[in-house]
Amino acid sequence: MENKRPLILVVNDDGITAPGIQSLILIMKDFGEVVVVAPDKSMSGMGHAITINSTLRLNRHENNWGVEAFSCSGTPVDCVKFGTKIVADGRKFDLVVSGINHGSNSSINVIYSGTMSAAVEGSIEGIPSIGFSLDDHALDADFSGCENVIRRIVDNVLSNKMEKGYSLNVNIPNIPKEEIKGIRVCRQAKAYWDEDFEKREDPFGGSYYWLTGKFVYQDEGEDTDIWALRNNYVSVVPTQFDLTNYEAIEILKNWNGF
Amino acid sequence: MENKRPLILVVNDDGITAPGIQSLILIMKDFGEVVVVAPDKSMSGMGHAITINSTLRLNRHENNWGVEAFSCSGTPVDCVKFGTKIVADGRKFDLVVSGINHGSNSSINVIYSGTMSAAVEGSIEGIPSIGFSLDDHALDADFSGCENVIRRIVDNVLSNKMEKGYSLNVNIPNIPKEEIKGIRVCRQAKAYWDEDFEKREDPFGGSYYWLTGKFVYQDEGEDTDIWALRNNYVSVVPTQFDLTNYEAIEILKNWNGF
Repeated sequence: MENKRPLILVVNDDGITAPGIQSLILIMKDFGEVVVVAPDKSMSGMGHAITINSTLRLNRHENNWGVEAFSCSGTPVDCVKFGTKIVADGRKFDLVVSGINHGSNSSINVIYSGTMSAAVEGSIEGIPSIGFSLDDHALDADFSGCENVIRRIVDNVLSNKMEKGYSLNVNIPNIPKEEIKGIRVCRQAKAYWDEDFEKREDPFGGSYYWLTGKFVYQDEGEDTDIWALRNNYVSVVPTQFDLTNYEAIEILKNWNGF
Repeated sequence: MENKRPLILVVNDDGITAPGIQSLILIMKDFGEVVVVAPDKSMSGMGHAITINSTLRLNRHENNWGVEAFSCSGTPVDCVKFGTKIVADGRKFDLVVSGINHGSNSSINVIYSGTMSAAVEGSIEGIPSIGFSLDDHALDADFSGCENVIRRIVDNVLSNKMEKGYSLNVNIPNIPKEEIKGIRVCRQAKAYWDEDFEKREDPFGGSYYWLTGKFVYQDEGEDTDIWALRNNYVSVVPTQFDLTNYEAIEILKNWNGF
């Protein structure tokens, strides 16, 4: 039996020119054959958006990474769909990795995150999928501390048979690698964003807004992703796309007329 | 003690001019004071996207519904945030309703749906929230069959204390109202989209794509939303924003180095 190298799709949401995806591509080349499909611009905060009301462009991306790469005008989820349905050209991906995101996707951020939505899309398509994020929003963030962590997690995903139905949300604390205490499997911490809209005036007298806000952390648990990051651990949350609240089903069945 | 009428935020993803939101507004006026914040254009398929890389506009929308209404340049989730943080102006919403969507949001569609993401956002902010969808994509869909269903569900949500942590995903079959057999509380059916990208040539010789696809239904269960719709029931799925797969946590803890 042929011992083929794994075929790996690399995507992100910060765009194909972001430093984070370059770090991820170089690591993933050691694990298999890499194909890149990434947005042609920043697509942060796009969640699980797909492009159905407008057209999409897909262009070959010249690179010195030594891999097959494409930029796409769509969202991170569009990139996964383009990767598996067009770029793959009949091949089957063994792994989807998304990131490395510039900024944490822990807690409720998972639901707004293009990085994680790309990983979730991979899992919907039945492919083992991982989203990686570094807890540092800076464009010149130092991704060198991520490498050992990513290698260990990818090793596990490729050697263990990961169940279908979820992807991994991996967040890496922004500290020197020798200070990372280990990897913790966590639940998503309870938190929300208390938004503010900063109102400004345009040169023509009209008003517009910028969405801003502060993160409100409501969770005392020591089994959460936020706790792990604050205590110098890498957090890994298994993230599912079945959104059903099964406990609530029994409650609602007692409602009038249900 | 003052017996105030409930304050209700109405949003959608098909845009403020869509017939579906007009039907919902007129029904909701019987339940309380209605405030509308809806996208100024179609925002279908936007999932849980938020606008963080560009500016946002919010404009008063003149209407003959007799309610306070605003159009917003952002996504359905942006509309909820604008509603609760700016338009509310210190008031607290008792209910968020989203829709009526032109098209079903059953099964995996929940994750791509702007309609449902708006409801999910309401629940993240701690407000009882419901997304309504009619299983008919037509712009001239007949929403009259939805009215009794919506009244019964809203009655229940306002009178029962709905737990925090989930919203309701309500899908209504596209049949005459006298043929609707009842309301079924369901789980999200297992299914996925097998996409195709239709390639076309622009007038200048470049290529572009339209995202299309067929829905692949993989679920034999009679407790799913798809089963309910196909058997002339209204489906109600409690939809949560904690994406943690708790069973997987125990499996992953046995991985090497975890």
